[in-house]
Amino acid sequence: MTDDADRPAIDLNADLGEGFGRWHLTDDDALLSVVTSANVACGFHAGDPSTMRRVCDLAAERGVVIGAQVSYRDLAGFGRRAMDVPPRELADEVAYQIGALDVFARAAGARVAYVKPHGALYNRCVHDERQAAAVVDGVRLASDAPLPVLGLPGSLLLAAARAAELPAVPEAFADRAYTAHATLVPRGTPGAVIDDPNAVVKRSLTIARDRAVTTIDGEQVDVHARSLCLHGDTPGAAATARRVRAELAAAGVRFRAFA
Amino acid sequence: MTDDADRPAIDLNADLGEGFGRWHLTDDDALLSVVTSANVACGFHAGDPSTMRRVCDLAAERGVVIGAQVSYRDLAGFGRRAMDVPPRELADEVAYQIGALDVFARAAGARVAYVKPHGALYNRCVHDERQAAAVVDGVRLASDAPLPVLGLPGSLLLAAARAAELPAVPEAFADRAYTAHATLVPRGTPGAVIDDPNAVVKRSLTIARDRAVTTIDGEQVDVHARSLCLHGDTPGAAATARRVRAELAAAGVRFRAFA
Amino acid sequence: MTDDADRPAIDLNADLGEGFGRWHLTDDDALLSVVTSANVACGFHAGDPSTMRRVCDLAAERGVVIGAQVSYRDLAGFGRRAMDVPPRELADEVAYQIGALDVFARAAGARVAYVKPHGALYNRCVHDERQAAAVVDGVRLASDAPLPVLGLPGSLLLAAARAAELPAVPEAFADRAYTAHATLVPRGTPGAVIDDPNAVVKRSLTIARDRAVTTIDGEQVDVHARSLCLHGDTPGAAATARRVRAELAAAGVRFRAFA
Amino acid sequence: MTDDADRPAIDLNADLGEGFGRWHLTDDDALLSVVTSANVACGFHAGDPSTMRRVCDLAAERGVVIGAQVSYRDLAGFGRRAMDVPPRELADEVAYQIGALDVFARAAGARVAYVKPHGALYNRCVHDERQAAAVVDGVRLASDAPLPVLGLPGSLLLAAARAAELPAVPEAFADRAYTAHATLVPRGTPGAVIDDPNAVVKRSLTIARDRAVTTIDGEQVDVHARSLCLHGDTPGAAATARRVRAELAAAGVRFRAFA
Repeated sequence: MTDDADRPAIDLNADLGEGFGRWHLTDDDALLSVVTSANVACGFHAGDPSTMRRVCDLAAERGVVIGAQVSYRDLAGFGRRAMDVPPRELADEVAYQIGALDVFARAAGARVAYVKPHGALYNRCVHDERQAAAVVDGVRLASDAPLPVLGLPGSLLLAAARAAELPAVPEAFADRAYTAHATLVPRGTPGAVIDDPNAVVKRSLTIARDRAVTTIDGEQVDVHARSLCLHGDTPGAAATARRVRAELAAAGVRFRAFA
Repeated sequence: MTDDADRPAIDLNADLGEGFGRWHLTDDDALLSVVTSANVACGFHAGDPSTMRRVCDLAAERGVVIGAQVSYRDLAGFGRRAMDVPPRELADEVAYQIGALDVFARAAGARVAYVKPHGALYNRCVHDERQAAAVVDGVRLASDAPLPVLGLPGSLLLAAARAAELPAVPEAFADRAYTAHATLVPRGTPGAVIDDPNAVVKRSLTIARDRAVTTIDGEQVDVHARSLCLHGDTPGAAATARRVRAELAAAGVRFRAFA
Repeated sequence: MTDDADRPAIDLNADLGEGFGRWHLTDDDALLSVVTSANVACGFHAGDPSTMRRVCDLAAERGVVIGAQVSYRDLAGFGRRAMDVPPRELADEVAYQIGALDVFARAAGARVAYVKPHGALYNRCVHDERQAAAVVDGVRLASDAPLPVLGLPGSLLLAAARAAELPAVPEAFADRAYTAHATLVPRGTPGAVIDDPNAVVKRSLTIARDRAVTTIDGEQVDVHARSLCLHGDTPGAAATARRVRAELAAAGVRFRAFA
Repeated sequence: MTDDADRPAIDLNADLGEGFGRWHLTDDDALLSVVTSANVACGFHAGDPSTMRRVCDLAAERGVVIGAQVSYRDLAGFGRRAMDVPPRELADEVAYQIGALDVFARAAGARVAYVKPHGALYNRCVHDERQAAAVVDGVRLASDAPLPVLGLPGSLLLAAARAAELPAVPEAFADRAYTAHATLVPRGTPGAVIDDPNAVVKRSLTIARDRAVTTIDGEQVDVHARSLCLHGDTPGAAATARRVRAELAAAGVRFRAFA
């Protein structure tokens, strides 16, 4: 039998708790049996307090690490509308969300262990230096501990995190097409999103085991990712997530939270 | 000179940070020079993250104790509309607010040191056993430490706090009329609110020094209060608050936060 | 063949458009093929502008009458938390919602043709005279035309509507148990909600054809209803609604909007 | 005596009703004695229903024309954060706001007679073709009548309005510095905002009477404006507005709403 240290390891993360009051979206229960890290919505794009509490309780019970999925304040747009929030306000809004979630993480015997921006904020922080720095300021404001920041490889967010001496954790997407430069093909481009569950499972394996992915042009490129992002807000998402985990396990990949 | 321990002592509390974004209400800067305890709005009836941060920074700088002024989720009604929130949801909403504020208290080198419900929630928790218990559940959820709860003497809120082994801190109001039973004359009753600053200052003194107040019928009744609530949301409020503090000081009253 | 005028007629209403942004709840498309009157959410408990527009467009296209489903301002609680809103504010909030919806009704070539309160406001207006009057004030403020008000038989809401010379339209529920006084058995009481689709279909028929219903004690009581409320927010709800319509049609019941 | 038709005429507009619930900002009462057109906040950046109603009642009483001051959905940022709202959603949000306000305008015996975007939406629509078109789509959705659109001369908003055959009404600012191209000097540039009331009054006169303004470089340029925007949200603003009106009147300028 192979020694554990020799086997490739990866974190699996997914967005969870993305309902609000009467509305539900993510299959939290199913996904918490798959992922090692839960990006929990904190109330600004989704996530009422009772949902946050329930997801934290379940996550802690199953040993899943809790992260704060921070967002612009935009329930109506589900955080998908980029906003020109002044940096200081943005930092404070990020800190507010982390603090609110941490109450439920602590009550469950855990802590908020990392931060990942959601939706338009995630995308904006790829290339917007001021907002990326503001998010990192918010993370530092919220915790004396060096909370890891999860984001896109090459993003200004991860650069800002490193500059602030916070762990910068790159992630990969098995359901998104990649360019030859190992960047994501923009949504809207034909082929940008991969819907076929078989393809998603297969790509997950190359990412997790080989740290590589086939580009939209058919080339192979290296992908430096310590976490693989699974999606949980579409029909069939939970089933695909379960298959991904099973296939990775069968291939000898270990699952290890980065935080 | 009198020994300190022989002099009466009281806490002065006021609602602070009750603006939201572009809107301002309370004269936070002035009041933070007067009070010993700051009831800071946490975003549900007022209080955006940047205001919360600024008030916490100022409070910590001046040695004012920070409390979470928790509310129903009601920006449009400023938390003044009683709401039938199911107890579990209410507890979670209370905990959410405390956690969000605690981030800014910690960043300022302090902690949320007590909790006081705002507006309609405050009034509801006088006589509604389920909501009173829910607020206390939220406080306990939010902190392992026994956070004091500030409220009306004789309220079910303070009873619920004691039942949960949290310190229950009764407060008094110098600008509200009292009945012979030492309860507040309901707003709306003629004479229920005392507008004359001179009368407010005088009543503050009897409350703080003599632990007594003149009722609406002219009798003297005992008032058991460890804190005196000053109001900061009306024109002239800050000036009256300063006068109260000066007169109490001149009369030998010491100021001491309860938490 | 029977003359149309001899056949019993009823309106079928359902709550529609109860999503918000990314979140969906009601199967609007399916229900708009069943009902004659659509209670469209107006943004206070659910219903973003684009959803409102889409539902109005579909309703107008299919000849379904559009009603404003007005609510307390409570997205987090889906309008299910009773609120002590001062009457004047409540009237203004009701009018605001009607006006907002009317834009989309007009754009679709229709108009808001009636008003029905949602959730906790509906329940509160059964017995709270001030709020019932405030809702009716809001309806009158919003329209010079005498807009019908849809509500529970015997409610103070319908009384207030009549007093204001607005048509008061009583509705019945096939999935709720009735007492001997033809009032609803309160939710929470065992047997209060009828889940069995067969029973719902059967009760719909007696309500629509015979204007009667079997009480929880097995008696038969008269039910004076000009509309039958179908629910659309549970799995299987649309299928049951379709069955109800088919059975009523087979029994010779005509469908006629009340407004 | 001069014939009226020979005297220059101008509209005076100001943002009104920009409070929310407990919070007040604009001195609505004072400004409604000065302006001929009231840009009334509609609830997305400010403006609760009761404030909207009150402002509409006062405006109608004084013969002030009512316009809808539409905004991004952003209470926390007071509509000052630019947002990437998809065009269709933006159009629907604009229409929603116009409809809501129109209820109160109608109840006061008036109608919403024009539309002006607020804050970040106003600025965005200067140069963002898609959002400018979306706002105009929203205006057309909300009314069969050709509602005028008020905006910056040279903006894509006014171009989109003209393309849709809506009256496009350019406005000028007496408290903002102009470039040699008759465009506004961006806020943040030294000298961009003119605080001196005397200068504001003087500039108002040249704009209203001479259709010209002195640029930041001391040149004179033509300003094609049918309306002059007065500000009402700073201390002293109402007093300055009154002085502007008095000086214009003394100089023989007539006041005439554009709508």
